[in-house]
Amino acid sequence: MINKNPCELTIKEAAVALTEGELTSVKLVNSYLERIEAMEESIKAWALVDREGALKAALRLDQELTQGQRRGPLHGIPLGLKDIFYTAGLRTEAGSQSWSGFVPSYDATVVARLKQSGAIILGKTHTTEFAHQDAAPTRNPWNTSHTPGGSSSGSGAAVAARMCPAAFGSQTGGSTLRPAAYNGIVGFKPQHGRISAYGVVPLSWTMDHVGILTRTVEDSALIFQAVAGYDPQDLHSLNEPVPDCLASLENQQEPRLGLVRQHFFDQANEEMQRHTEEIAELLRQSGAAVEEVALPSNFTELHEINRIIMSVESAAYHQKMFTKHKEQYRPKIRETIGGGLTIPATEYARILQARLRQRAEVGSLLSQVDALLTPGAPGTAPKDLTTTGDPVIQRPWTTIGLPSISLPTGLGQNGLPLAIQLVGAPLVENNLLAVARWCEQVLDVSLRPPLD
Amino acid sequence: MINKNPCELTIKEAAVALTEGELTSVKLVNSYLERIEAMEESIKAWALVDREGALKAALRLDQELTQGQRRGPLHGIPLGLKDIFYTAGLRTEAGSQSWSGFVPSYDATVVARLKQSGAIILGKTHTTEFAHQDAAPTRNPWNTSHTPGGSSSGSGAAVAARMCPAAFGSQTGGSTLRPAAYNGIVGFKPQHGRISAYGVVPLSWTMDHVGILTRTVEDSALIFQAVAGYDPQDLHSLNEPVPDCLASLENQQEPRLGLVRQHFFDQANEEMQRHTEEIAELLRQSGAAVEEVALPSNFTELHEINRIIMSVESAAYHQKMFTKHKEQYRPKIRETIGGGLTIPATEYARILQARLRQRAEVGSLLSQVDALLTPGAPGTAPKDLTTTGDPVIQRPWTTIGLPSISLPTGLGQNGLPLAIQLVGAPLVENNLLAVARWCEQVLDVSLRPPLD
Repeated sequence: MINKNPCELTIKEAAVALTEGELTSVKLVNSYLERIEAMEESIKAWALVDREGALKAALRLDQELTQGQRRGPLHGIPLGLKDIFYTAGLRTEAGSQSWSGFVPSYDATVVARLKQSGAIILGKTHTTEFAHQDAAPTRNPWNTSHTPGGSSSGSGAAVAARMCPAAFGSQTGGSTLRPAAYNGIVGFKPQHGRISAYGVVPLSWTMDHVGILTRTVEDSALIFQAVAGYDPQDLHSLNEPVPDCLASLENQQEPRLGLVRQHFFDQANEEMQRHTEEIAELLRQSGAAVEEVALPSNFTELHEINRIIMSVESAAYHQKMFTKHKEQYRPKIRETIGGGLTIPATEYARILQARLRQRAEVGSLLSQVDALLTPGAPGTAPKDLTTTGDPVIQRPWTTIGLPSISLPTGLGQNGLPLAIQLVGAPLVENNLLAVARWCEQVLDVSLRPPLD
Repeated sequence: MINKNPCELTIKEAAVALTEGELTSVKLVNSYLERIEAMEESIKAWALVDREGALKAALRLDQELTQGQRRGPLHGIPLGLKDIFYTAGLRTEAGSQSWSGFVPSYDATVVARLKQSGAIILGKTHTTEFAHQDAAPTRNPWNTSHTPGGSSSGSGAAVAARMCPAAFGSQTGGSTLRPAAYNGIVGFKPQHGRISAYGVVPLSWTMDHVGILTRTVEDSALIFQAVAGYDPQDLHSLNEPVPDCLASLENQQEPRLGLVRQHFFDQANEEMQRHTEEIAELLRQSGAAVEEVALPSNFTELHEINRIIMSVESAAYHQKMFTKHKEQYRPKIRETIGGGLTIPATEYARILQARLRQRAEVGSLLSQVDALLTPGAPGTAPKDLTTTGDPVIQRPWTTIGLPSISLPTGLGQNGLPLAIQLVGAPLVENNLLAVARWCEQVLDVSLRPPLD
């Protein structure tokens, strides 16, 4: 293990090496800083790298470990944060010109919990403006003329490029799983409200999810367990016990998977369709029960529901600032907010009802299987730096708050990553992570972009 | 017991008499029909009395009982239903001219569950138009020149006048507890979503509660237990286990009560203020711990929150019909719907956020006591048949969905009933009912209007 470049270790591996004294946090942080030094100019994943702060924290955490003090499972592990997470004393600009230079006075709840469990904030990763769809400067490490996806653009690219072992993103449409799919890494978003969004710049509070980007399912579970749980400061926080995902990972069985061809295959190109079928067949051969399932009627209205809710809630949040400084907003977020300001309350009220109906119907579909299986994206990352790609594959599930995860499953003709998405039942992220870990082990795909 | 006129029995008493063969359901129903015959002309509680249907059902239920079959705890007990509950084959007009003659093809979930547990639908009680504030024709049985309150006007008056032992109402502002207070009976509304609202004409779906009007706390608990519980057909139904309220009634202790003088005393007249203080003192002398509690800051914004949400959601439901037939709506509901149609989605979205904040803050207040204690209404029922009175005492709690109950506690100078309101913590209706039962026994007030 210690023969690897530390920046190639998973969190689990690094945590073991740190605990056993084979590695120091300073060495680990330096390894990522060197990688950033080498790659950042072409990738542009970071809005801010807190070199000094990270090394200082690493030194202190190393000393604590020497004295037998281990804060938690992430002790000494550096992470990236999408630049919409408030970090006390560290610039947080949300990809917006008008937030330039803003330094929060407090940490988002996630950030506070990360620090409590010993994690180190390596820096802030590029986001599209306010986590919407106006492209960030980041490029895809598999091919820098392709988008890394968005809105968690920097987080996806940084993890894929081994600039950090994990990074936080957010997802209101497809903003965590889509960059995961495009960059060949794991993207996981738990149930809505499971991880506190307090101190995270909102786009649409009833649909904003904190998301986790890692290289393995196990690392996602480790991080999830460190930060999930009720937070009274977040109005949408779930006041429910957090399932023990790490225990569930030890307890895998051949899963029952519901393959969703309907709608999702229409949205995917031929290569991704074929690839999804191949993956389904491989999983079947390994013992999974894979059956096609039918979507509830009207399922596709979830796209429109997402659009209306996002427009209204982003407009409600931005209204004051937008009315004064409309010209400072980039075109896509400007159009969304502008549209939201014109929607009558009755329409939004009816749309919220329609979402409840969808939630009930899709929930009952999910009671029949362990997870749903769809393509991970319409195709590989588009060769277009003005877009962040299409969230169509993730958006319906995000709209109703279900846990979902993207797994890297191969490479396309153009050498860029292909992926599948798994969607789980409400509240039982442990089951979804166990299914994902089973698939990950069975498929045994490990993707690494050409970094050197 | 059998010496009483059957229409004077509580449900509990009647159920025992029925089971022990001392009473038949036909006799019980006839006793109420006679009372209706005698009183209805002056009280006007009923939109429809299903004389034949009720007697036919009573006969069948009597036969079943003779054969040793008892459907449930309400076997053979006749009840009234506010005329917004869908009843298959029975007119349901929601107090609206434009619904005149409408006969639903299915039962509301509550009605179906009532029938399953052996209850008999005696008829439909008058409601204000669409359960809003335009007065129904009903009069207060304590003094027919006074309002019975609303919107569950007929249900409140019918139970007080012994025309039925219990009736269902609804509450979106104060529409169950206020008529209970004005008519000298018990009004109970559980947690929002606890009793299905499927098949109940909506006024404001995120605040509409099914309410229960009875003469005793125990009867409310009996009925609650028969109809409460998850219903997938109601989008806002709570998917949570129903607490065993009957068991809790057996298990009373001196409660910790939080007296809320702030805001609620400002809303009550001097007589009601003094009365509430006297009741608090009586409860204290009997062993309750009564301490004044302070409301969260901004608590009174709950009135405005209720107004906005009710406007928007009623407008969303009525929009089509209202656009065509505005002139058929009475003035108050017309103003509410008309206003709702002009509210922008961003305002409603921010108001929903504000409600979540209030829910969290008031919830934490309720973790310190077993129940909050307030006046039951601003005063006795107003001498004004054009109004249904002021819901100001109930509205804040309704807006955030908390369980609440109104207890009759005495008579005012004008000979009309006075009341207190108790408000309980989220989801534990059993605790609230146990507190209410303790207060009821300690205070030992039994009110009966001059009927004969």
